[in-house]
This record gives sequence, C-alpha cells and structure tokens, in this order.
Amino acid sequence: MNIGLLGCGTIGSGVLELLDKTNDLKVLKVLDLPSKKDFLGERFAANYNEVCANPEIETVIEAMGGNQFPYECIKTALSNGKNVITSNKEVVSLHIEEFYKIAKEKGVYFLCEASVGGGIPIICSLIDSIKINKVNKIYGIINGTTNFILTKMNKEGVSLDEALAEAKRLGFAEFDATADLEGLDMTRKICILSSIAYGGVVDYSKIYHYGITKVTKEILADVKALGYTLKFIAQSELVNGEVFASVEPCLIDAGNPLCGVNYEFNAVYYDCEFNDKLGFYGKGAGKLPTASAMVADVKRIETNSPKYYFEKGKEYAVNNYLDSSKYYVYDGNKGKIIDKLDNVDNYEFVARIF
Amino acid sequence: MNIGLLGCGTIGSGVLELLDKTNDLKVLKVLDLPSKKDFLGERFAANYNEVCANPEIETVIEAMGGNQFPYECIKTALSNGKNVITSNKEVVSLHIEEFYKIAKEKGVYFLCEASVGGGIPIICSLIDSIKINKVNKIYGIINGTTNFILTKMNKEGVSLDEALAEAKRLGFAEFDATADLEGLDMTRKICILSSIAYGGVVDYSKIYHYGITKVTKEILADVKALGYTLKFIAQSELVNGEVFASVEPCLIDAGNPLCGVNYEFNAVYYDCEFNDKLGFYGKGAGKLPTASAMVADVKRIETNSPKYYFEKGKEYAVNNYLDSSKYYVYDGNKGKIIDKLDNVDNYEFVARIF
Repeated sequence: MNIGLLGCGTIGSGVLELLDKTNDLKVLKVLDLPSKKDFLGERFAANYNEVCANPEIETVIEAMGGNQFPYECIKTALSNGKNVITSNKEVVSLHIEEFYKIAKEKGVYFLCEASVGGGIPIICSLIDSIKINKVNKIYGIINGTTNFILTKMNKEGVSLDEALAEAKRLGFAEFDATADLEGLDMTRKICILSSIAYGGVVDYSKIYHYGITKVTKEILADVKALGYTLKFIAQSELVNGEVFASVEPCLIDAGNPLCGVNYEFNAVYYDCEFNDKLGFYGKGAGKLPTASAMVADVKRIETNSPKYYFEKGKEYAVNNYLDSSKYYVYDGNKGKIIDKLDNVDNYEFVARIF
Repeated sequence: MNIGLLGCGTIGSGVLELLDKTNDLKVLKVLDLPSKKDFLGERFAANYNEVCANPEIETVIEAMGGNQFPYECIKTALSNGKNVITSNKEVVSLHIEEFYKIAKEKGVYFLCEASVGGGIPIICSLIDSIKINKVNKIYGIINGTTNFILTKMNKEGVSLDEALAEAKRLGFAEFDATADLEGLDMTRKICILSSIAYGGVVDYSKIYHYGITKVTKEILADVKALGYTLKFIAQSELVNGEVFASVEPCLIDAGNPLCGVNYEFNAVYYDCEFNDKLGFYGKGAGKLPTASAMVADVKRIETNSPKYYFEKGKEYAVNNYLDSSKYYVYDGNKGKIIDKLDNVDNYEFVARIF
C-alpha cells in the first residue's frame, strides 16, 4: 500500500520509522516544513496536495496536530477517495461526524485510534463492543502529562511546578501545558469516545472542565487524610437520552483500579450492557506507542477490516455533575465534603467524590 | 448467517439469548442432552453431525467444555468448511495448532476469544498487537473463582473454605473447584495466550503450577505485614527462544495495578516492543460476558474481519521461575523471603515475589 504522511514531528517520525521497516507499506510523500527537506529527500512534499490529491497514494496519515489546516487536509484526502488515519484529537473531536460522512460516501476508511489513549486500543475495542452491547458510561485517566504530575506530587511530595518541570524534562509535557492542566485535552478525548459510544455528536465545548493548577501539597495531604487519592478524571454517561460529562479532579477510594494507574500511564473503563465493565491500560502518549496505534490502523486497512461509520446526526445535551454529586471543597487550610456544589468559585479548590 | 450451537448450558444459553435478539444471525440447530428437547423444540439436535455436517450451517459455536468430544466436533466442523467459535480453554490449549491448520486449509475462521478472560477482548487485541509488535511477556489474573476467593479472604478475613462456599453460592465456582484452586485452569489460559503471542506450541502440561489450597488467614496476615498482597497469577515470558511460565501465588507490591483487580474480575497485561505495557480488565467469567465475547466472534465473521492463523510448528521449551526468582516461604507460623527456591516441598506454603 502507498501511503502519504502529513507531519514528521515526534509522532510522524515514529510512524515513518515503523513503516520503513515493513516491505509492503511504502511512504511515498511526507509533508513538512522546508527545514525537513534534507532529511526527507525525494519524499519531501511542500504542498498538501502532493499528498492528499496524489493519485498514487491510497492512505493518508495525519500527524500534525492543530485544527484548521488538518481539517482541510483530511477533507481533501477523504473527498479524493483516500483512507485517512489521524492521531489529532482536536480535529477529530470537532469534525468526526463530517469525516465519517465523507468516508462513507467514498467507501474509504476514517480511523482515529491514536487520537485517544496513545497506544491503547480503546477505539477499536469500543467499536467492537457497540456492535453487540449498549455502552452507557465511560471514564478514565486519559492524559499522561497530568497523571504524571499528580503521581509525582502524591508519591514524591514535590510541588506542582517541580512536577511540571520534570514532566517537560522527560518529554511528557509540551512547552505550554495549559491544555493538559486545564483539562481541555481530556475534554477532546472524552468527547471522541462519547460520540462513538453513543452514536451522536457530543459538543466538546459544552463539557465541564476544572483544572489541576490549584492543587498543592497541602490539598493532597488533606485528601489523603480523608482516605482518598486525587486523580484527574474524564467521565461521561448517557442517562435518559442526555449526556453527563466532565473533566475534573476527583477523589477516589483506595480500592478503585484507577488508583494503580500512575505516572504517564492511562486507563479507560466503560460499562457494557452484557459485559459489565471493561478496562484498558497502557501508555497514553509518546512517539512509538502512538505511532504503533497508527500503524495498527494501517494494518486494519491492509487486511480489509470491517469499516465503521458513525451513524446519524443526533446532538446530545451535555450536563455536568455539579448538582448531582458529592464534592470535596478546600478553603484556607482545610477541606470538607459537601452534598452538592453550589458555586465552584466559592472555594479555593474543588474535586468531585468519584 | 446460519449458526449451529453445541451445548446449551450456562454459556450456550447466553449465546442463544443474544443471537435470538438479532435479525440476521439464525441459530438453526442446538446439540444438547435429550432433557433440553422440550426447551429447544425444532432446533434440538441429538447428534453432532446435525450441526457439524449440516450443509445449511456456516458457523458452529462450541460451548460444551471438556476435551475429547468437543475436539471431534470442532475438527469435523472445520473439515466440513465451517467457521468455528469456541470458549473451551481445554480443547483450545491442547489442539490450537491443529485447529488453525485445518481452518487455514479450508479458508474458514477459527476464533476462541471467550476461551481466555471471559468478556475481555484479550485475544483479538493480542493478535492485533503481534501484527506490528513483538510481544515477549504476558501476565495476569485470569481465573475469576480464585481471585474472588483470595479477595474475600484478604478483605473480609474469612477462611478459604468459607470463601469457596460463597463463590459456589454466587455461581463463581464449579461444584468441583480443583482445576481452579490448583491453577490448572490458568495453565490452560496462559498456554493459549503464549502460543498465540509467541507463534508456537507451548505445552500446557509443562507449565509449573502451585495452587492456593494451603493459603490461610495467618499466611495472608504475614504477607500483609511484609507490605505485600497475595494474588494468584499466571505469567509467561519469551527469553532467548525459551518460554518461562508459571501459575502460582505471588506477592505483589501495593503499587502494582493487579492489586486493584478484585473479586471475580480478571486482568491481563502484556509487554509490546513499541507499545510498552498494555492491560485489559473485565469480568473473566459468567454467562453474558462470555456469551457476548462469542457473539463478538460471530460479528467478526459476519463483517469479514481479517482471518488469523497460527503460523508454524515450533515447540518451545518451558521453564519455571523457581531458581531465578525470590520466593516467600512459610513454615510454622512465620514466613520469610529467600533468594531462590531449593525445594517446594520443604515448606508449608510458597509464593513468588512478583
């Protein structure tokens, strides 16, 4: 199969490395900035149409990140009858319905396994599950940066700034980690999982998110004294035709399997009609885990795996848990647990009792 | 698709229930004892050839358990060009190579997702992983009965006999639970996973197993005082072309994700070349979880998912960890940790330090 690659940064170069080891999967063209021209040689493409409108290319792999430009590229590739694989949670969370629609019209694949949970095969498992089960609840730790930071703070007693600096040093955090710390990254991912699981559009911008920037050593000690562990969790549920979803710090019991998910690891759980709870664990980010999820998508195309398309245009109402869940609220130097949250802004820090 | 079912006990009746809800998957014939004749009506089959040699049936689902008779049935069905789906870990662990060979010759599916981990999609994930990664280590809790018993003992302070009685009362243990308690059930399952992951025959009868029948409240208290939790774990590794495997009680650290796998839940982890560690969690047994794993296999056939066949006839040497791992040994009323195990029989109870 002839492949075109959009973006040769961390993930894209991992994809190139894995595909170049195979005999049958040939990367013909790679779009990147002119600075990569020497490295890429004859495969260098300066214009996205050399990839997305290239008649020799069957499958386009997008690994650029961002929204507007990847959106144009993916739409062009699909409209030209090419299979598309992407790891870009931003563009998928915004346009999944349209991408599935064009892919269906053209009879090609749109695959986005790597957009959630890095190397964890969560999307293909979810698609398998919904063929026979209703899935009505999904939750998990799906951001490696913030889980690394909280684990480091919890286990090693360092401050948030120190943990963040270490995460950057190890390559687990971007230079600007705001999207991670504020929970925006996880809203994209829980939006994608919810849209697929519930078969309708879940507007990511309506998902309540509350970040972890205010977490201190004192708060973690207080939470521990109450018998809990603080984790940054994304959750979504389908209840009577409406979605409840949030991305927020949560207090979890010692017995909860999420307690054992530490550092850069991720875990996602979902509840199935016939199959109770299923869970998936692995590295949520990183060059080779993410690249191997994308190559697994390539293999799905190569072996003619069943195509899946998102059906129908239902758009779900999105609610949060603020007035239906117990919350931990922290003020001054002490926290307490209250039955529901009146106003987030009344407290220094709040976290849901999971 | 027209389906024939072999066995209508707990799992088989679950499969029938799920398939009868669909419009396109028709169960034409069900083999069972004459006592089920009234319940099954026109679909009742008294002889396995009414299913396995029936020209109208494309896919045969085997849910009987046991070895010799299911082996004959599966071989007959495959040889007659029918797809076969089974949940029978005994027959799969003994004959997987032969089943894949006949299936490949006939161009049909041989699928056994439900034979390990009940509703957990571990086998399809493993097969996906080995298409692009080498998998060289697999471990987990893959027996719900014994995990239920140990969790009950650990958390509620009951004796093994009391926990076993409760497991039977709740349907988590067979009348004769020896195969579970001695680890035989898990040797079958780790054998299947290892054979698929390493692409060669792993003789299940050579896998070292040491049961949990000697576990007492005193031992659990002693293990806890040492800072560990006792879990019954199956493990296998491929090291320099040889397999190391065992099914034995192990002492695990509080930080190990397996600590959070409790009661009838199972979890399996494996290490991938490019993808680090992947983990899968869910109900390892039970009517509907197991039945839904079998129906997921039916869906794989219906949607023309890629066929997978076990390649080649390498038979691996199988070693254990006795002289290469630290062990906890218990005698009289106290345990200690030693560098390697001289002789299992020198102690009342032994468990590996995981």
